[in-house]
Formats: sequence, structure tokens, C-alpha cells
Amino acid sequence: MTLDLTADAVALTEQLVNMESVSRDEQAIADAVEAALTPLDHLTVSRHGNTVVARTDLGRGERVVIAGHLDTVPVNDNLPARREGGLLHGLGSCDMKGGDAVILRLAATVPEPNRDVTYILYDAEEIEAEHNGLNLLAQRQPELMAADFAILMEPSNAVVEAGCQGTLRVDVRTRGERAHSARSWMGVNAIHGAAEVLRRLDEYDARRPVIDGLEYHEGLNAVFIRGGVAGNVLPDECVVEVNFRFAPDRSEADAEAYVRELFEGYDVSLTDSAPGALPGLDVPAAKAFVEAVGTTVNPKFGWTDVARFSGLGVPAVNFGPGDPMLAHKQEEHVPMEHIERCEAQLRGWLTA
Amino acid sequence: MTLDLTADAVALTEQLVNMESVSRDEQAIADAVEAALTPLDHLTVSRHGNTVVARTDLGRGERVVIAGHLDTVPVNDNLPARREGGLLHGLGSCDMKGGDAVILRLAATVPEPNRDVTYILYDAEEIEAEHNGLNLLAQRQPELMAADFAILMEPSNAVVEAGCQGTLRVDVRTRGERAHSARSWMGVNAIHGAAEVLRRLDEYDARRPVIDGLEYHEGLNAVFIRGGVAGNVLPDECVVEVNFRFAPDRSEADAEAYVRELFEGYDVSLTDSAPGALPGLDVPAAKAFVEAVGTTVNPKFGWTDVARFSGLGVPAVNFGPGDPMLAHKQEEHVPMEHIERCEAQLRGWLTA
Repeated sequence: MTLDLTADAVALTEQLVNMESVSRDEQAIADAVEAALTPLDHLTVSRHGNTVVARTDLGRGERVVIAGHLDTVPVNDNLPARREGGLLHGLGSCDMKGGDAVILRLAATVPEPNRDVTYILYDAEEIEAEHNGLNLLAQRQPELMAADFAILMEPSNAVVEAGCQGTLRVDVRTRGERAHSARSWMGVNAIHGAAEVLRRLDEYDARRPVIDGLEYHEGLNAVFIRGGVAGNVLPDECVVEVNFRFAPDRSEADAEAYVRELFEGYDVSLTDSAPGALPGLDVPAAKAFVEAVGTTVNPKFGWTDVARFSGLGVPAVNFGPGDPMLAHKQEEHVPMEHIERCEAQLRGWLTA
Repeated sequence: MTLDLTADAVALTEQLVNMESVSRDEQAIADAVEAALTPLDHLTVSRHGNTVVARTDLGRGERVVIAGHLDTVPVNDNLPARREGGLLHGLGSCDMKGGDAVILRLAATVPEPNRDVTYILYDAEEIEAEHNGLNLLAQRQPELMAADFAILMEPSNAVVEAGCQGTLRVDVRTRGERAHSARSWMGVNAIHGAAEVLRRLDEYDARRPVIDGLEYHEGLNAVFIRGGVAGNVLPDECVVEVNFRFAPDRSEADAEAYVRELFEGYDVSLTDSAPGALPGLDVPAAKAFVEAVGTTVNPKFGWTDVARFSGLGVPAVNFGPGDPMLAHKQEEHVPMEHIERCEAQLRGWLTA
């Protein structure tokens, strides 16, 4: 598979969507990105697993990171890409190959930006943080992420979305005692024991705090459930995997404590955690970018690597084509006009 | 692996337990059984998948079937066999390799029984009925199961257990709509939707009808639950696999209607069903056997192939070593004295 960077950003989005790249299966798309960027003389390209970094080195007074992830959630009968009216449909069109296409077009066509740029296209954003390509880069070569400001091209309706919510996962486990299902009074059914766990999830009422004038919206969801030994055995274990999305006014520790209290009486073990990021619009570099592109500012509900940059002391915002409400839905799509507008605004900012 | 039929029945049980034979993996044990029986001149041995049939053909006025299954539920850190006091511990010791050992000892050492005997050792009793070796034999060569009376050596505390409860399985399915878990208000969580299904299971109150003086005991249990798409996606489906064990005064159709009514409002699909068997102690051949061995009579809670023989018009009872309450439990074991007593009583009956 090869990418044609002379195509316009919409056609390039289409090419990227048609390169299936479910998390942990990004080698082909990363190979194509690396092969497309390497011939460009104004960029220094390096490869880190399935993450590709391309940098200008013009000695400008400021450096910005523009980043996007290459992976998608599992295929859901929504490939290949399809154009209809002003929309491009298909898995990843919104989350976030439209943004990736803008990154690749800028990398290919702005050889002398007014600030140095580090373009990062990385893998494994849709799964556990331990696999996240940007996380691994931050641990192993943080110098490649150093910048005055970062823009993540996560879908944000082509306006600036500030901050992000944190995310954590816990396994809530119920235990029982195996017995033959024909003599069930001799055992304890661990799946039945999960009824109350699911009831608490079903009755959960989401908090919606307002921070810096932006309304966040928390969420608590079972994302997996499993239990069972054999068709005639009472199961002795049931595991509910719960994902908590928490507003950035909670720390990871506060969020964990909240979930542990909610599931008091059950065996709760933390499996994954990433902090949120406060809106951070008071940082000068962020203010300057927002003024330059002239868009409105909304809160970011999804966890994004904004938090990872915040953790490294680099102010960062989300700014990309597509409606984040459509991310991970079968009917995912992106307005072509969003892709064109994001590209034009960033090109204007980098060449003013 | 070979079996030594000159060993006593307890030692033979130990040999059988140490031949791991989880359902669908019975070839090795069936090979050993076939190889041990084939050299015996007074038996005609035939093989049907992993089911072995051995028959005397002495022209007696009566024929009886003595049958047992060779498979076990999954291993649960309970192998190899271990003797302690008067007990033999280990997977399958109770359900039902003690009974199988008695069958093999009788087959080897009673060359001229006073009634013709058909010994049947079969596979896949612990899983869906479609795989059950005796069921397949009944469909393909029912003449091999023809008899005046049948004894199933399922564990019954070395006393006669009459009739058996029926069993059926349904998948109870909830549906939702996928969405990114960071914007969960855009979707519907199918796992949360299963809270009410589990609540109904948890609150189920078992019926205990008395039939022919024997108290049966129904049971309704989730045996599997599954749901989930990815760690950050609201799942659009959750499936609870439910096993209903019903008393023999209900037909399969009645039992299915009961379960469908209990889960009204949900998508319920039947995946497996087998009828119960009424106690049937009014049949002369059954009465005669009970009088000959002189034991008490209890109800049978577990589904057994008693029902399959009843369906073919052959009266049948359960009579085997081991406490059925221990079947499928990690600490499964069998009193050695049960094995010896069952062997002695059947030997007496076949040689009187």
C-alpha cells in the first residue's frame, strides 16, 4: 500500500480509511506513512515501532507539535470509504484519519513553516495506555515531543476543544462456588452475584461540572462482561470491566476512590488509568493559537493525548475535522469541508 | 494408555481418573476401553465415534443395558487421583468413572450372566445433547440400545435414584447501541441492560414438587455471560446463557414457556433441550431390580440418559457409586466402599 501526498486532503483521507488499521495492526499504515514522508528533503523522519515522527529543523524561535493517531476501533461493517454529498463515510474517517490527512498534507506542502514543526503519527491510541505510541515516545525519547505548544487533530468539529476528561478502567469481580447446575443449591452463582453491580451501573447519574466556563460530562460504563465455566456448572467468577470517564477537576486518585466507593463490597482492581487535563486556555501559546484560527472553544469529553502533553509541561489543544459524537459509531463520517477548513487554517497559521 | 481389567474396581477407577477425558477429548480413554474389552471372547465389541458397546449374546430371555459416560467437566486443579482414608479423590472419580470401573469389571469377569447384557461406555454427556454419544447411538443404531431394562451408573450414593429432571438452555440477549465511552449519552449500554435479567435470576425461587412420593428440586442459572466490543466502546449486545433444570412433571414445551414468560421483554432463543423422566417405578422390570438390590429409592435431580431410554420405551434407573452433590465440584471424590458395594450388588443380580 502506498500513499499519494499530491492528492488533496479529502482524497488522502479516503486513502487512509481504506488502509484498515485496527489497534495492534498498524504496521501497514505506518509503513505507508513512513515511505511517503521519507523522500521529503525538508523533513527528518524517524520510526519508533509503528509511530512515525517527521521534523523540520529551520532554527525557528518556536516549535509546535501536530499529532494524530493512525489506529481505529474494530471494523463494524463500515469499510471501505464512501462519499455521499459533502460527507466521507467509513471507519476512521472521523476518528481520526481526516486529521491525519491534514497532517500529511501540511508536512508535504509547507517546506518552510514560520515555526518549526514536529509531525507525529502514532499507533495504539484506542486501547490500553501502555501500548499508546505517544506514551512510549514520551517515555523513551521525550526530546522528540519537546515543544512550545501542541495541537492534537482529534475530531473536534474543526473548532478548538480544550482540556480533556480522564479515563480509568477497573475489573469488578464477583465470586461464587462451582456446583452442578442440576443441584444448584449446593453452589453460589457468581453471575447472579453481578446483578447488583449492573444495577449500580444502570442507575448511575452522571456529574456535569462547569470548569473555566466549559461543561464537562462524566460517564461510567461496563465495556466487557465475562463469566462461565461449562454449560452445566454454576460459575465461580464473573468479571465486569468498567470504564470511568471523569472530568478534569478530579485527579486519577480521586476518580479511583470514587469508583471503589461505588462498588464497595466487591473486589475492584484498577487495570488502566490516565489523567484528564484542565482547559489550560490561560497559557499564552494556547491563547495565541485560538486567536489566530478564530474559532469558538468547547470542552473535550474524550480522553486525548492533550493530557499526555500537559503532563510533559507542553500546552496543547484538540483541533480536528469531524464530530467527536460520531467516533466509534458504525455510521462514522466526516464533512469534507471540515478537512479543508482545518487544513486551510493551519496552513494560514504556519505560513502567515 | 492401557487399562488393566484384572485390577479391582477401585484401582480401575483410579486408572480411569488418571486418563484425562474432558468432553470432546475422549479418544484416548475410548481407545483404552476398546482395547481392554476386545480380547474378551464372551463379548462382541463395536466402536461408534468415541462410544464403545460390548454385548453378550447368550440367548437369555431378558436383556439389560448397563451404561456410563466417559467424559468429565473441565479440569479444575483436581488431577491426578488421590486416595485418602476410604475416599478416592479426583476429577471424574464421582461423575462417573467409579461407575465406569464397575461396568468394566462386570464385563470382564461375568462371562455368563443370567440375562444378556449390553455394556455401553459413551462420550460427550457433559455438553450439548447433540454431541451425546448415547443420543447419537439412539439415532443411528437404536437396535444396540434395545433392552427390557437399563441401569445408568450415574452417581446416586449407591442407591436407586428414580426419574430425572429435564434441562434446557436459552440465550437471553439484550441489545444497545455502540458509542464512544467518553460520550456515553450518545449510545445505549447492552451490559447495563442485562441488570434486570440477572436480578430476575437472582430472585428466582425454586419449585420443589413431590411426584410418586419423591421431592424434585428445580433450578434456574446463568452458566455464561458475555458482552463487549472494545475497552472504550459501549457494547451493543450482551448474552446471558441460562440453564433451566425442571422437574419431570413439566414437559419440554411447558419448561420453555415458563422461561420465556420469566424473561418477557427480552430476546430469548432456545439452544438446547432434553426432557425429564417420571420416576417410572411402576414398571415391572424396574420393580424387580429395586427388590433384588434392596436399596432405598430417591429422586434424581440431574438430567441423565434415563430420559433417553424412557424416550425409547426402555424403563431405566440411576444406580452408581458417589454422591451426586459432589459432581462438578473441585473436591469431587467417591467412597471406595460405594464402588465395591455397587459391583457386588450388580454381580449378585447378574449371577443369581
